[in-house]
Amino acid sequence: MTESPAVTERSAADSVAELSLEQKAALTSGADFWRTKAVPEAGIPSILLTDGPHGVRKQAGATDHLGIADSVPATCFPPAVALGSSFDPELVERVGVALGEEARAEGVGVLLGPGINIKRSPLCGRNFEYLSEDPIVSGTLGSALVAGLQSQGVGASLKHFAANNQEFDRMRASSDIDRRPLREIYLRGFQRVVADANPWTVMCSYNRINGVYASENHWLLTEVLRDDWGYDGLVVSDWGAVNVRTAGLAAGLDLEMPASGGRTDAEIVAAVRDGSLEESVLDTAAKRIISLVQKAVAGAREDAAYDADAHHALAREVAARSIVLLKNDDGILPLKPAASVAVIGEFARTPRYQGAGSSLINPTKLDNALAEIRAVAGDVSFAPGFTIDGSDDAGLADEAIAAATAADVAVVFLGLPAADESEGYDREHIELPPAQLALLDRIVTANPNTVVVLSNGSVVRLPFTEKVPAILEGWLLGQAGGGAIADVLFGAVNPSARLAETIPVRLQDTPAYLDFPGEHGHIRYGEGLFVGYRWYDARELDVAFPFGHGLSYTSFAYADASVESDAAGLRARVTVTNTGDVAGREVVQVYVSVPGSSVQRAPRELKGFANVLLQAGESREVTIEIPRADLAYWDTRADRFVVEGGDYLVSFGASSRDLRAEAVVEVGGDELRLPLTTDSSLAEIMADPVAGPMLQQHVVSMLGEDAAALAGDEELLKMMGSLPIGRMVSFSPDVDPQQIQQFLDAVNAAR
Amino acid sequence: MTESPAVTERSAADSVAELSLEQKAALTSGADFWRTKAVPEAGIPSILLTDGPHGVRKQAGATDHLGIADSVPATCFPPAVALGSSFDPELVERVGVALGEEARAEGVGVLLGPGINIKRSPLCGRNFEYLSEDPIVSGTLGSALVAGLQSQGVGASLKHFAANNQEFDRMRASSDIDRRPLREIYLRGFQRVVADANPWTVMCSYNRINGVYASENHWLLTEVLRDDWGYDGLVVSDWGAVNVRTAGLAAGLDLEMPASGGRTDAEIVAAVRDGSLEESVLDTAAKRIISLVQKAVAGAREDAAYDADAHHALAREVAARSIVLLKNDDGILPLKPAASVAVIGEFARTPRYQGAGSSLINPTKLDNALAEIRAVAGDVSFAPGFTIDGSDDAGLADEAIAAATAADVAVVFLGLPAADESEGYDREHIELPPAQLALLDRIVTANPNTVVVLSNGSVVRLPFTEKVPAILEGWLLGQAGGGAIADVLFGAVNPSARLAETIPVRLQDTPAYLDFPGEHGHIRYGEGLFVGYRWYDARELDVAFPFGHGLSYTSFAYADASVESDAAGLRARVTVTNTGDVAGREVVQVYVSVPGSSVQRAPRELKGFANVLLQAGESREVTIEIPRADLAYWDTRADRFVVEGGDYLVSFGASSRDLRAEAVVEVGGDELRLPLTTDSSLAEIMADPVAGPMLQQHVVSMLGEDAAALAGDEELLKMMGSLPIGRMVSFSPDVDPQQIQQFLDAVNAAR
Repeated sequence: MTESPAVTERSAADSVAELSLEQKAALTSGADFWRTKAVPEAGIPSILLTDGPHGVRKQAGATDHLGIADSVPATCFPPAVALGSSFDPELVERVGVALGEEARAEGVGVLLGPGINIKRSPLCGRNFEYLSEDPIVSGTLGSALVAGLQSQGVGASLKHFAANNQEFDRMRASSDIDRRPLREIYLRGFQRVVADANPWTVMCSYNRINGVYASENHWLLTEVLRDDWGYDGLVVSDWGAVNVRTAGLAAGLDLEMPASGGRTDAEIVAAVRDGSLEESVLDTAAKRIISLVQKAVAGAREDAAYDADAHHALAREVAARSIVLLKNDDGILPLKPAASVAVIGEFARTPRYQGAGSSLINPTKLDNALAEIRAVAGDVSFAPGFTIDGSDDAGLADEAIAAATAADVAVVFLGLPAADESEGYDREHIELPPAQLALLDRIVTANPNTVVVLSNGSVVRLPFTEKVPAILEGWLLGQAGGGAIADVLFGAVNPSARLAETIPVRLQDTPAYLDFPGEHGHIRYGEGLFVGYRWYDARELDVAFPFGHGLSYTSFAYADASVESDAAGLRARVTVTNTGDVAGREVVQVYVSVPGSSVQRAPRELKGFANVLLQAGESREVTIEIPRADLAYWDTRADRFVVEGGDYLVSFGASSRDLRAEAVVEVGGDELRLPLTTDSSLAEIMADPVAGPMLQQHVVSMLGEDAAALAGDEELLKMMGSLPIGRMVSFSPDVDPQQIQQFLDAVNAAR
Repeated sequence: MTESPAVTERSAADSVAELSLEQKAALTSGADFWRTKAVPEAGIPSILLTDGPHGVRKQAGATDHLGIADSVPATCFPPAVALGSSFDPELVERVGVALGEEARAEGVGVLLGPGINIKRSPLCGRNFEYLSEDPIVSGTLGSALVAGLQSQGVGASLKHFAANNQEFDRMRASSDIDRRPLREIYLRGFQRVVADANPWTVMCSYNRINGVYASENHWLLTEVLRDDWGYDGLVVSDWGAVNVRTAGLAAGLDLEMPASGGRTDAEIVAAVRDGSLEESVLDTAAKRIISLVQKAVAGAREDAAYDADAHHALAREVAARSIVLLKNDDGILPLKPAASVAVIGEFARTPRYQGAGSSLINPTKLDNALAEIRAVAGDVSFAPGFTIDGSDDAGLADEAIAAATAADVAVVFLGLPAADESEGYDREHIELPPAQLALLDRIVTANPNTVVVLSNGSVVRLPFTEKVPAILEGWLLGQAGGGAIADVLFGAVNPSARLAETIPVRLQDTPAYLDFPGEHGHIRYGEGLFVGYRWYDARELDVAFPFGHGLSYTSFAYADASVESDAAGLRARVTVTNTGDVAGREVVQVYVSVPGSSVQRAPRELKGFANVLLQAGESREVTIEIPRADLAYWDTRADRFVVEGGDYLVSFGASSRDLRAEAVVEVGGDELRLPLTTDSSLAEIMADPVAGPMLQQHVVSMLGEDAAALAGDEELLKMMGSLPIGRMVSFSPDVDPQQIQQFLDAVNAAR
């Protein structure tokens, strides 16, 4: 970024105007694996992009996109699976700021994240890199991360755009999704981040969407992203996502990464020369690339540095705020200082703290829970109990049972081996290793005072839920997770995290069970809108732990719920009181239902949340603003978002299945008057306040005696109501098509 | 049919050659609601088509397509919901013969049936007209009905072609179905009937399929039906299903019904004249219509008549064979002659025996169960208990409790009111009326010896399954159902029917629960292949009673299972023994699994069945032939049916969840060598016996050192295996696209 400051001294458009065709084409692909091309003679420097999203993976030597070769040390913050559980945008923004500091210190212009794809199935191998099964959670927290990062003059890359919800066949398969779920579930989070945080770049995904590669999808990259959402940043390919470069450029893919060695630049030049690609398309891409370079140059600081210890401390704070207390019978947690504790499980000593692939960070340091627990509680006993790789060692289990038996409380660290979860492939099951489950069974029998601490990047089945009194879902917690676990176990931190993804009873219950991961290049998203809790609620299925669930060491009461509606949306208020003995955070969740809706809906949808810290006994009125846009469904007839008018039921919950207060508010609907046509059914026409009476008036002359009978006969109308009015001509030669059209014209004019 | 015999004395082609353009066009639409147009000067008479499928609905006066106006008396045989449960093609064929006799006696050339659409959801209002949730059952029994009918010189009309699985918005909505379920589930039964029974006509449905009206769907009516399946009969529109007539004709819709008053004939003439429609298309349609008229004329008999009493007796026999004994604890059934019986429920006196709509038959006579029970058991007591229309009458319930209390056994007739199930609209729930359920609760408390007899056209939830010792699912049984119920209750007939559709525990468990009936003109068949039992099995869901279930008054043992495979398919053999005291029929069901399949499959699929009558103590070896075609899955890559090679597990069951014997057989697969392309993944190439070693050999020179590392590293291969080989160029400028193509060419040549 040091070649020339000239790039920031004039407009990107002016810079483009001075470039040759070849120079412009050159800009649109990488110089090498991580850098854009410089055009020194035009004062355009190269900038550096590196993997994220929960740390800076800057490769100094060999390069790859799968976390294989080394990278320089950086703070490994909790991955998205943990961040998502924090339900706290302010906290996530602080992580973004810290990431920005580290990126800037390493000369990084763009950090490749956040990843906000929806967790459609627990089997997706990369779920640990994603935030939630819900687009409002993903969008809100994704925006916070982008805002924090970009506040430091480092760009984000919002990824993977779009509908990339699995690893299997990710470079070929088409995510076949109907328009409503695509807009309301899979794109809504992206739309939110674009609107709220304006990421410098958006990264297109590898997969196809309804048959068309994301990297050459004009509908996605131009019509939706730019025309609908007004995005003016840059679209970069995921590494290697380019299929046909010229098609991609025309679709709106500005920057190809990594380098093509000039091959695709030449294709672009040739296409412009032979007229198959308009030069203005190339100009636009080049301009966006120069704009990005300008931002990166402006954000760069020669002397940037960061405080690794402070970042480690932040990583610990965030990790503790990401641990979900799933269960805590009889207040077994926090552990009493006087209790003797046995720590069991290799994960206590050898933490699993991040997932494999492009997000793999080389941490600046690495805590483990065992040492941190000992730092608090002195010389607790420890037994590894099992090997992480599953290699057989029967003696380990016996030793663990002995330790558990001898202690007041056994804290058992279970988890998934690293090879179970990775970028590049999906899981085949959601089971913890059988040896670990068998060990736990024996431990619980030996000592019922057993606390389970889990390390896993994506949900696992919890067959022991009824057997153990306490469970901490520790996800993957980054380099300081060990200390965070100790903080929560002993009450230094009162847990406040919530499940951003449902823990199902069985894999067989999950929404995408029968069409994940698809076959022969197609993935049918057959569950439609009903992703995550929307599915379990709609099918009234039991779950192990519901979306939004998470306990505290204190308790909260809800009162005085109210909701106002205005042009901006809803303003939901509720008073929350900490009714326990210690300070704690409550995540107040607002779910909205539309009981009389004319369209298909989930029983309830999260529309907003607030994260509030309350001292023991403290009450506070919490206000949650719900933007009107978030109330809208995608109307496939009008092909746009529409807010339906009517009564909305707003519920305030401590989880999606622990609703504590509610209020009903009337919402004014968007205008949606679709013209009546020959395809309109008799029932639809009868139901229309204007057309119905007009039909009654003209029915005999227009449709004959038989149809006239309809109007007065409820049973008949039920049987024949779905008949399109234009189709009446097919049942009787006496019906005149022109007369029907005249009627419709008159009706539409009167409406 | 009497104008002229000339039509049968020359070929249809010769007849067409003599017709004017206007005459040909005239032939392609109806003369009135039920008749084709005659061309007297060419010796072509009119023929009569009437509604079926479980009786002849010939309207003498006013005409309609919804069973509104009267029709001449005809035997009302059990509707398809009952016939399907018989699992007996021979029995169904006898019904077809009888229908043919009646149709011929009424001068009917084509009877509009059978309807073999798949029961996708229990909510479909017209399920009572359909046979099963399984295409093999639908196809086998549908063929039997067509064969019987057509043996009498009367044509069938196989309907509703295709993917018409609900009534809601049936005239507009598009059934959006992926190719595999479309071919394997929704079209497979039609294909079977076309191949095995060659119906004179096929009736196209009202709905769209993947966006295109069935009535103008060239893919469906020509590519699939004629080109793939070789069908040479006639395609007739469902009444009023024509959208744009000329588009329909070009797509393969020969005959429009009912009459268009010459409007659409004129459109056809104009289209031929202006060149937008080829005259040869019209010639083909006209030829098919004349061929149909020839068959109808040849089949007609001036003096035809039928024996109404004999047909009533047949209707009773068939009805008894269609009643499913769901439960029979402690052998409470058959009722002991000495027991005192209280008959309760208005349905015993006022039978519900058919559904509403176009299939509504005016019966020649009508039995009721109460009279028939009294004919067997003397003066049993009776209390109506409730009103069918649900009107309140508290006294009725008290009277029923008194009757139940006074008797040894209470036989309680419950069912759905007629308005709950009909053509033209769908159900909104699967509940029996609450008043009936409340009454049953009181009866069971008063007298635990309670037998429930159900009258319903589609499955209902059975919340009382655990409470009552015996349940007879009586469906809708036609005009002689009353006697049939008495026959089964008292053991004159040993029940042998089986569920052709699963009875779920809850509506929420059903496969299409969340996307039935769709909205805004689209119905996403999101459950894909997993329709009916395929869903419950794949998701390991409990059901109330599984597909194929049905008890007998005797018991059967299975032994000596074996299966052979040859070019024709599988020959499955098992020895079945009647191990009880009375003669009975067993429906031996053959389910096939492909445990190591490379494609998605249901855990097991019905592939054949046999209906065997065994005397007490009798053993018989049963052989079931499974045509090789029925083993095939639809391969979306090759766009054809493919039999996968490998070990097939063949299970012999008394139901889909009561598998009694099994055998494994190796099946030779169809050749399916798809060429390797730049889109082929590294893992696919590595797995290919020819390409794998060749890749190993050339990997360094072609893909570079990094990729070479792959070949030997299992973990890396797992992460990167899904990379298409052609996409390697996007990761490294050193990889040469031409070299990859040369490699692929060499590989494909060597395979």
